Order: sequence, then C-alpha cells, then structure tokens
Amino acid sequence: MSDAALPATVADVPTPCLLVDIDKIKRNCQRMLDTARNMGVQLRPHVKTHKTIEGADIATAGTRRKIVVSTLNEAEFFAANGYDDILYGFPISKEKIPRCQRLANQLSEFHILYDSAEAMQWVQDAPLNPGKQWSVILKIDTGYGRAGVLWDSDDVVTVAKAAVDADNVRFRGIYAHCGGSYDCKGVEELKEFGAINTDRVTTVRDKLQSAGIACEIVGTGSTPSCSHPADNMAALTEFHPGTYFFYDNEQVRIGACTLDDVALRVATRVISHKPSKKQLVTNCGHTALSYCGQKEAGDEFCVVQGHPNLRLVRLCQEHGMIQPVTGDIDFDDHPLGTMLYLYPYQSCVTAAHHPVYYVHSGEKIVGMWRPTRGW
Amino acid sequence: MSDAALPATVADVPTPCLLVDIDKIKRNCQRMLDTARNMGVQLRPHVKTHKTIEGADIATAGTRRKIVVSTLNEAEFFAANGYDDILYGFPISKEKIPRCQRLANQLSEFHILYDSAEAMQWVQDAPLNPGKQWSVILKIDTGYGRAGVLWDSDDVVTVAKAAVDADNVRFRGIYAHCGGSYDCKGVEELKEFGAINTDRVTTVRDKLQSAGIACEIVGTGSTPSCSHPADNMAALTEFHPGTYFFYDNEQVRIGACTLDDVALRVATRVISHKPSKKQLVTNCGHTALSYCGQKEAGDEFCVVQGHPNLRLVRLCQEHGMIQPVTGDIDFDDHPLGTMLYLYPYQSCVTAAHHPVYYVHSGEKIVGMWRPTRGW
Repeated sequence: MSDAALPATVADVPTPCLLVDIDKIKRNCQRMLDTARNMGVQLRPHVKTHKTIEGADIATAGTRRKIVVSTLNEAEFFAANGYDDILYGFPISKEKIPRCQRLANQLSEFHILYDSAEAMQWVQDAPLNPGKQWSVILKIDTGYGRAGVLWDSDDVVTVAKAAVDADNVRFRGIYAHCGGSYDCKGVEELKEFGAINTDRVTTVRDKLQSAGIACEIVGTGSTPSCSHPADNMAALTEFHPGTYFFYDNEQVRIGACTLDDVALRVATRVISHKPSKKQLVTNCGHTALSYCGQKEAGDEFCVVQGHPNLRLVRLCQEHGMIQPVTGDIDFDDHPLGTMLYLYPYQSCVTAAHHPVYYVHSGEKIVGMWRPTRGW
Repeated sequence: MSDAALPATVADVPTPCLLVDIDKIKRNCQRMLDTARNMGVQLRPHVKTHKTIEGADIATAGTRRKIVVSTLNEAEFFAANGYDDILYGFPISKEKIPRCQRLANQLSEFHILYDSAEAMQWVQDAPLNPGKQWSVILKIDTGYGRAGVLWDSDDVVTVAKAAVDADNVRFRGIYAHCGGSYDCKGVEELKEFGAINTDRVTTVRDKLQSAGIACEIVGTGSTPSCSHPADNMAALTEFHPGTYFFYDNEQVRIGACTLDDVALRVATRVISHKPSKKQLVTNCGHTALSYCGQKEAGDEFCVVQGHPNLRLVRLCQEHGMIQPVTGDIDFDDHPLGTMLYLYPYQSCVTAAHHPVYYVHSGEKIVGMWRPTRGW
C-alpha cells in the first residue's frame, strides 16, 4: 500500500488493526538507551517484539548494530537490510547450523548461544570461511528454568571449556534471560530480583575467570529488570530487553511501566449489540489480539482504553465480546461502528498476529510497518 | 520456495513448522461432503480454518463455488483465484461496505450477513452496478450469544422485513452458527444439541414464512454438529462447518472425531535438556502453537503424539517445555534434535500462526501451501 493510501487518522483505520504510537516508541527506546548508557552497559535491543527494520532503527539509535533476534528468519531479514553484530538469542540446534554458517560468513559479527558440550561439537565441526571463527556465548539459567546451563552447576566451566578448546570458535562470554522478573510486582521487587539475578551472572563470570576463561560479554535482560535496574547491573556489559519497545498491559501490571507508556493497541469497532448479554460485539477476535494473558489475568488480560468499567470477556476467531464489570451497558453510548482501542496483555504476541502495523503520531497516521515472520 | 527445495520427509522439515496430512484432509472433506449430500443439504465449507486455495479446492470438490469466509481479505483472495458464490460470514459493518460493493459487482454471487435494521440501511444506501442486487442473509442467534438476532425475538421479522422492503436487496434467508455444540461431549449430546439448534432455526424460518417472507437459504453449521448431525438437520439447506478440514484436539475432546482424523500437527525438535525440572525444551513456542486451549484444558490443551505421558506445560515466544505427567524422564530417550509432533487445541488458531504449511502424504512431503492473512 502506498503512502497515498494511508488512513488520515487513527479514527479512520480499517478494523481490526494494530496501532503503534511512534512518539511513545521513541520515548521508550530513548529511555532504555539512556538507562544503559548511564550504567555504562551496552544496550542490545531484542527485535523479536516488533520484527521491523523501522523499529530496530529506532531501538539502535540508527547504528544498525548490536541486536538480538529470536529466530534465524529475523537474523536473515535484518542482515539483508544492513544490520550487523547480530546475536541469535536461542540455543543453537544442529538443524540450524547451515544457515548460521552463512550468517557467520556474511556478517562481521554473528553470535550464537549454546548450552551444552554436544551443541558445541556441532559448531566446531562446521567450518567457516578462512579467517572466520564462530562467536559463541554460553547460555546461563539463573533460575528461570528454561534453556541454559544452571548458574550454580559445575557444568558452566565444562561447557564453556568445550568452546574455549575448539579451534574455530571464539568464546565470548555468558548470557542469561532474567525471566523471573515477570513474577515481580513493583519497582522495589524488580530491583531486588535484578540484583539477585546479576549476582548469579557475575558468580558464573567469576567462576569462569578462576578457571582461566575470560568473559568479554556478560549479558542479561528482560524488560521488567532493565526498566528498573538494580545498581549492581552496572557490572554487566550488555542488556537485551525487547518488550520495552512497545510495553503492554503485562508490564503495567508488573510495574515496569505505566499505561501511558504503552505504544501498541488494537483498534476495533462495535459490529453488533447483544442486549440479552449486556455485551458489545466487536470485530477483534483472537486473530487480532491472541489469547495470551487470559490464563494469567482472567478478564483483566486486556484493557479497553478509556472504559475502566468494560472488559473483553470472550474471544472467537473474528469476534470479541465486551461487557461492563458492574451495572448495565447503555448501547447508545456505543453505537454500531464505535471505535474501541484495546491494550493487549503481551505486545510481542499480539504484534506477531499482524501483517502490518499502522504507525501514528498523535492522531495522524504517518506510516505502515511490515514485520518479518516465520522461522 | 520451489518444489526442488521441499524437504523429503516429515523427519526432514525445518522446525518449528506446520505439518498437514493431505490424505486425512481429503478423507475429512469427502466424509463431510458425503454427510451433507446424504442429508440433501448443500455443504458450504468455511475456509477460515486453512485460508488456502489448495485446501478450498479439496473442500469444494473442485467446484470453486459455495464457500464461507471470515474476513474480506479471504473473500478477495478467493475471488481473485476464481472462486464464486462466496458468503462473507461476519455481520456487515459500515466501514466494510465499499469493499463489499466491489465484491458484489465482481462475483455472480456474493452474500453478506446482517443482524440489524441499521446495518440494512447502510446496505440499501450503497448502490451496485446495474442489474446487481445485494444478496443478504439474516444472522440468527440460536442461543450461542454472539452476533445475530435472537431466534425467539420478534425482531427476526422486523429485521428481515428491512431487507425485503429494500429496493436493491434480495433477502435470501437465515444463518445460525451452532456454537453451543462446542460445549457438548459425545455423539449423543451432539445430536441432541444439533436437533435443538435446528428446531430454533426452522422456527425462525416458519415465523418468517408466516409473515410472508420466504427463506431460500436456511443454514447452520459448526464442526461438532455437522460431524454427527441430528436427523432433523435434513430440513436445512446449507451446512457451513470449517474445522473438520483439519480437526484438532478440541474436536477429539468433544467427541466430534478421533485423534486419527486430525490432519494438522506442529513439528518441533528438542533443543535443550533441563534435568532440574525433568523437562525437554523444544523450539515450539506460542508463535508456532498459540496459547489457545490453555484456559480450557490446562496441560491437556496439546497432545504430544506417541507420548501419552508427556505434556507441554509452558510456552514462551520460541520455547515450549515438555515434561512427564508422572515419574521421571529419561533424556536418553529424547536426545537433542529429537522430533516431536504436537496436536494443537484448535487448528484454525494454530494454522493462522504459520506463513506456510508443509503438506505430506504418509511420510513424504508433497507440497507447501501458503495461506492468506489479515483483514
């Protein structure tokens, strides 16, 4: 669609669609850049949240260097668009080695994560072009319980050594997702948890140091912990949050941001009235919003902007049903065609449902972004 | 990607990806075509489940006529690919009128749903080309509580009359989603519920008949009710199920099909071992599977094929964690790289997450389908 076809304002967009507020995005990105710089830490933004060149340009302040991606599709997309120093932030698996070889040969810096000696064997068995070495980072689990070598296990030295000892491999350091911060509530808890997480990361760093293995890169991240960083996070070299780009209702509930920071909404219209259920039927179904957060937050998973007494209580493929928390609903206040703006629970999930983002500054639509997709 | 780039077998696909079994799809589609024909009812397949030309060709037995779509994007996609007699199965809203005008002018048969006199006013105010009339179907709510005029309300006559009285409009009949069938368990309940739903639909038809309004089309649908139809459903003129194309874990739980009928799986590989949590970490996250069904079915929302003691217990963006229901897990049984096949809760939701479907016959990959997307 050419710019000539842009809707004029947020009130004119086709529905359902994804609205992203460029001014809030810029503010969120600048704030995170400032936070990292003030702590003397390199920000390596995670671009899985938006998966767009335009977004990554803002998040990297135009450098097009130092990003994290969640899929090889993202890595290839950003590499094809002039990005470099890309970290593939997912434990390497054998089937992905050939595509990683191409990226490692193509880019000046392409980093991979690994979390086992077995994975390192696949890497060292895969040759790169002359003069090229694999740049590898050990994935650490500081208690989140996902991928990664447990921080307090002796395996950290053994598995790091597997890379250090490999000929065509350069061991760069360690990385840990600070996923437990999603269970925090409020700034104080976030800082306490961030401090504990950092202690664990630096414990691994020191343990490797004692074994003669230097960590040039010591990274952690998560939007909650990086939005309100603990003082000791200055001991790290890299942060890699992603969701702060848009923020979302989950981050508001955690206390990482306020609703005013949230740059992503789904625009939907009332398409039917259901007096028998006191419900507005809208054209925002799960294809536009996702079910994410229903299990965690019940009917509060989604916020209907400007209507604190309304809740999205049910989703079908293309329908979303909205009803009052208490009292009746006056349908005259919400005639057919009324636009409603929904703040989803998790912005990465909802953004991944949309082929295009409608970008606005104030009320004016200023562009359209098309994210990449797939694996 | 050309066919030359097709993976050889289901064991060779990149992961995560969507696998669809062409033989099961053909069997599911033939069975539903037979069911409808044996009852003397027209099958109008809902293509929202797969959103592909290849799939709709099978579901319509090659006629490329009589389908239901859930979005105008689908309508335009199928119309551009030679499809006709398309029902836009979502209540018309004012913003969609211009695109519907184009479709109505372009196709020999393009039907829209409406559920209020106000919506009919927008329709009759929108001119079509000379010789063209809007073909409209009244959306009825038989108790599901979504869009549609309540079946036992006097509004059915008033709202039908709004179309009958409009100059450029042809009133064609009534349509009801049999959504309540999703709360049934087993064939007997499905038949009982299907019968009640049909009674309500035919009650509306008779009421309109008494008011001098003929219904050429009397339709209902839902995969559960059409998979095990009540005898009185022979009184209808059209069925419009969609999910039967793939079926899924939800339909198995309802009793609409068996697991052997399910034609859609997500292929994923073990990418890390987590002994501290007795978990396999896989590369199937919510981007490949969706959160759909977690609220309804807990840890049973997803079935791990061939592993009745394994459950997918947690999803991140690109990770899925699998653990045993009881006892320990022997990681030697699931080395890194092991392929696992997951049956999702709801096939329409999961399919919408994938830019490409890998089509297989037996173990052999025979093609790739690319669904349409968006609104």
